[in-house]
Formats: sequence, C-alpha cells, structure tokens
Amino acid sequence: MTHWIRPVPPLDEEAMREARRRQGRLTKPPGSLGRLEGLAVHLAGMTGRVRHLKLRHKAVIVMAADHGITAEGVSAYPAEVTAQMVQSFARGTAAINVLARTMGARVVTVDIGVRGPEVPGAGWVVRKVGPGTRNFLAEPAMSRVEAICAIETGIDIVEQERSRGLDLLATGDMGIGNTTASSAITAVLCGRTPAEVTGPGTGLSHEQIVRKADVIERAITLHRPDPSDPLDVLVKVGGFEIGGIVGVILGAAASRVPILIDGFVSGAAALIAARLAPVTRDYLIAGHRSTEPGHQAILDHLNLEPILDLGLRLGEGTGAVLAMPILEAAGRLLDEMATFEEARVSHRSPDHAQDGSQER
Amino acid sequence: MTHWIRPVPPLDEEAMREARRRQGRLTKPPGSLGRLEGLAVHLAGMTGRVRHLKLRHKAVIVMAADHGITAEGVSAYPAEVTAQMVQSFARGTAAINVLARTMGARVVTVDIGVRGPEVPGAGWVVRKVGPGTRNFLAEPAMSRVEAICAIETGIDIVEQERSRGLDLLATGDMGIGNTTASSAITAVLCGRTPAEVTGPGTGLSHEQIVRKADVIERAITLHRPDPSDPLDVLVKVGGFEIGGIVGVILGAAASRVPILIDGFVSGAAALIAARLAPVTRDYLIAGHRSTEPGHQAILDHLNLEPILDLGLRLGEGTGAVLAMPILEAAGRLLDEMATFEEARVSHRSPDHAQDGSQER
Repeated sequence: MTHWIRPVPPLDEEAMREARRRQGRLTKPPGSLGRLEGLAVHLAGMTGRVRHLKLRHKAVIVMAADHGITAEGVSAYPAEVTAQMVQSFARGTAAINVLARTMGARVVTVDIGVRGPEVPGAGWVVRKVGPGTRNFLAEPAMSRVEAICAIETGIDIVEQERSRGLDLLATGDMGIGNTTASSAITAVLCGRTPAEVTGPGTGLSHEQIVRKADVIERAITLHRPDPSDPLDVLVKVGGFEIGGIVGVILGAAASRVPILIDGFVSGAAALIAARLAPVTRDYLIAGHRSTEPGHQAILDHLNLEPILDLGLRLGEGTGAVLAMPILEAAGRLLDEMATFEEARVSHRSPDHAQDGSQER
Repeated sequence: MTHWIRPVPPLDEEAMREARRRQGRLTKPPGSLGRLEGLAVHLAGMTGRVRHLKLRHKAVIVMAADHGITAEGVSAYPAEVTAQMVQSFARGTAAINVLARTMGARVVTVDIGVRGPEVPGAGWVVRKVGPGTRNFLAEPAMSRVEAICAIETGIDIVEQERSRGLDLLATGDMGIGNTTASSAITAVLCGRTPAEVTGPGTGLSHEQIVRKADVIERAITLHRPDPSDPLDVLVKVGGFEIGGIVGVILGAAASRVPILIDGFVSGAAALIAARLAPVTRDYLIAGHRSTEPGHQAILDHLNLEPILDLGLRLGEGTGAVLAMPILEAAGRLLDEMATFEEARVSHRSPDHAQDGSQER
C-alpha cells in the first residue's frame, strides 16, 4: 500500500559531528548562540553539508482545498473564501505573499481540491483531486484512491520545485474548515479527546468551539479511523490539502530538503507523514507555535520545539516563512564565522579552562 | 545636568489609530497575525507612518570598551579579547557580521574605550573616552565628565548614521567584563540583590558566579550608587560602551528611529536611558530574551516582551539583528496586504458576525 513512498535517508551523522566540531571552534563562548547552534548541526545532518549552506532557493508550497464538513457550520467564514484567497495568493496581496517577499522565498499555490471550475494559467497550479472533500459527518471525507492521489500530488509538486532549485521548503495551507479536519486527525493520532485539541480556528466563540468538538466526536465515533493506519485517518476525517502537505513532506524528506512546517494544519499533515515514514520527522523544523490548542499536542507528539512563538494562527505557511531567516542565519554562522585560530582571538583564561560545564 | 538630552517625542497616537483601523480590514481573521499586529501598530506610533514602512536602512551599532573590573577575575576570557573581537568585526568574521549580512544591515563598530593604541582607519570608528574603565572595586568606574562624554558619543554616532539613512537600529556591545557592570547597574536600578541578577556571562562556573556577585555586592556597598540618579550609577559601576549605548538609545528615540535592543548589556543601558528620559521606553523593542538571569529583571522592569527566545547569550547585537526581519515583516504586512474590500474576499459568516471576541 505504501510502495509509492520513496525511502527517507537518515540524518548524516558524520556531517553533524563535523558541524559540532567546527561550532566549538568559532569565535564565541561555547553555547552562546543557543538554539542556532543546534539548528546548524541539524541542517548539516539533513543536507550533508557543513559549509556553504546558503539556503538560497526558498519556497513555500500552499495547498488549498475545500471541506464538506463546513456544511456543519464549523467555521467563522463561508466556504467561498477558500477560492477567493487562492486568487489573493495569485495577486500577491495575502499575508503569505508579503512574508515570502520579505524573506526572499517564492510562493507556489496549488489548487488540490477547491470547489468550483478549473482556472488554468491563473497564477496557481491546478491539480484538483476533487471538488472539496465530502462531509465527514455523513461519509468518509475521501476515498483511499483520492488520499493516495493527494499525497502523490504533493510529491510531484516538490519534484517540480526541486528542478527550479530548492534549498529550504515551507509548508502552507488554505481551506475553510481545515482546522476541523486537523483536530480530528490530531485527536486520533495523538490519542486525545476532540475537546482537548479543538480551538477557535478563524475565530469561533467558546460555544461554537464546543459544537465543533462535538461534530468531530461524532465523526470519529461513526468512522472509527484506525490510528495504526495513517492513510485511513486521512481518508475518514482528512482534507485534500492535508494529503497534499503529507506528500510535500515525504517528497522533500526523501530528497533531503529541510522542511519548515507551519502551524496546526501543516502539523496534522506532519503527524500522518511521520507515521507513514518515521525518519521523515528528522527533516522537520517547527517554524512557530500556533495558538490553536491542538498544535501543542502535535509538537509534543513529534517532539518538536518551535523557533518562533508569536501568537500566530493564520496558516498559509506564515509562521514557517517567518522563521526562514533564523534558519539561514544558523547555517551561515557555522560557515562564515572565523574560528579562534583563524581570527587569532585568545581562548578562555587558563584558570577558567577547566570549567567544562558549557562545552559541547 | 541633563540639558544635553534632546526631548523624545511621544508616540503618534493618530498613526496608531489609523494602523489599527487598517489592520482590522486586512484579509485575515482578526488577531490571527498575533504579535505582528501589535508590532506594526507600534512601528506606526514610533515613525508616524502607517504605509510604505520598508525599514530599508538598517544598522547595528556595536559599542566596544574594556573594564577595569576584569582585574578581579570576573570573566572566563582575558581582557585582550575585546580588542581582538573589534578586529574581527572589522574583518567581517564575527557572529554579528554574519547576522547583519543575512538580514541586510550594516555593522558600525565603535571603539569607545578599548585598551591599547588608537588604530584609525582600520574599519571601525575610534572615539575613545578612556583606555577602559577603572576597577570599580577600588574607585568609580569613570568620572561624571567621562560618563556624559560616552553618552554624547552615542548620540553623535546615531546622528552620523542617520545621515547615511537609518530606518531601524539595533544596539550591540563588546567588552570583556561588561556583564559584571550590567549586573551591578541592574541590581541598583531594579532593586534586586547582585546574586539575583548575576550570571555566567561568557561561561563562568557556579562558584565563579558566586564570586562575581560578591565583587558586585562589595562595589555597591563601597560606592552606594544613587538609583534616583542614573548617571551616578553609570559613573560608579558602569562601562564606556554601556554609556555609549545609552546615547545611541537617546539619540535614536529623539529622532523617532525604532530601536531593537539586544540582550543583557544593551538592556542595562536601556534602564539608564529610560531613567534619563522616560518616553524613550516607547521606542524600544526587545529583540530577544537572553539566558543571562539579570536580563529578565530588566525586561520585567521596562515591561518589554522580547520577540525571540532562542537561548542566546553572546551580545554584539546578535539577538537584536536576528529579530529585524520579524519587524520588517510586521511593517510590510500592514502596508502590502489587501483589505477585504480591495480583494473582494467575503467577510465572516453572518451567523458568526456577532462574535466580537476576536475583534479589536
């Protein structure tokens, strides 16, 4: 069933050792660059490169699709906003466009299942798996064939983007109703109750959140998605854009491209990807911590510590793209800083040298 | 005594109102950009501009000086490292250089009191107030005239940089021994004991930290710096680079230039600046949270919430420069995103429209 998943290579341990060695000789007190030191070692492990890691070609892939579950009134916005926002992405006026311009990344928008007619050549890639998912309170969100098709689409898109140059990838999503699907996936795969992992999404009131969690509870009771079969979870309560992001993650990890995952919806896709191919997790960097409550459950489950914590809950890939310069900085510090020997800077005082507490 | 301080204008309330109005009409759920929304409003208040806020010209001013207190063995590195690192800054191989290149900022290194001969034209600005401070365990670190001279130097440097274009400023420091001075300033101005605000600096052991706190305790007992006279605190237990940063902050705030302050040493300078001219505080943005324990006391005292929390403790301005793209992003989002009307994107569903909990 998973023959189409390319193997994901393990992190390059030798490159990581070399990165740690060099990190320890740079002109700074050991450990003083904090999280940036670990990120540089992680980048070396993913890419196999310790030097000249410029992360020049950066892209955010925004997967967009509609959700049948919106019929249950689970979102603060009407479903047509999905298609309208795809047009905004093409015009370059949405938040993700502004952030990508600021950080020097390109935006790749994919209609993987937005309701409405195909509009080819309009500034986004059209790869519709279907006209939105079905209402998963009545029937499974998609068929098993559709789920595989969504994942393969994501893998395809990464391959296309790699041919244009791809050193760093961010995942993004657009889909009115997709925090409902993400909460359902998170509940099943993290073993939480829907109430624990359901939040306001685009802005529900407390009462509306309770109703949303109840819809999820009923859907899970109806379909009994199998947590040991991640594809089954995607089929029963997922979304086409979530499947697409699963594919993006699998494809990028197989090609050793570091992946900045965005918030809650990307996180739900990461849960599925990491079940399908566990080594995938080692290629994930959490861009930010979303305020959506289910996101923390995902971060805990995948053991990821986000780079940023700025109270974002927009999706589109915004929190992932915002973290891009931090990652670039980590890679460039390891490459471009001089060592103590090169810079002829004095080491620690002899009477302090025996203090190894800060050394790695 | 403070006639040389230019008045700092209050934040532009009308610009902030206009920024909030526009923020509420952008194509995103209200509040979904989290901290970035408040930062954009803050930028509007500081600069008076709601649109076209590109923060194109960015600089980090790194003030470098030596400290007589190093004679007491308070640092893990020998004092000559200050001069060696200034040379690294000029060669472009230190952490701050790499980060500034990554973020598109220029580095302005100022020798405001490094021990050793003047080396003009070597890639840094030479404005020595003295050959390092005196050992404040024996006598005041500097004279009142020297303290004022250090502050005026900082103000001068900002004026020079403004003539080259300056939309966003970061503060930075280099000075072996300067976390000792900063802990002393923080203890006096935040009303804490030296033990509460003294940390490892470049990497002391627990035992050495206790000794460092004891040195600070004895110096405060000896000189009794007056917390109601911030200049007296600078004189008794400060540093020339700390005085320089005080001037940089005062000068930038007077000219309505937003200031990203770095970690502990810049924070100690910010404490003094905010006492000399309280409105200054409104022009400060904390770039990051340092792991140095005294930094949290400063953030609490000035009521600042840092943008990044990445475990840095290097100084040089590194944590401030790392936060620059976040601030740029905040300003550009407010300017470049379309409003719902412009983008013809549907508003919230009528049955959710009465939920005002997320509205600003």
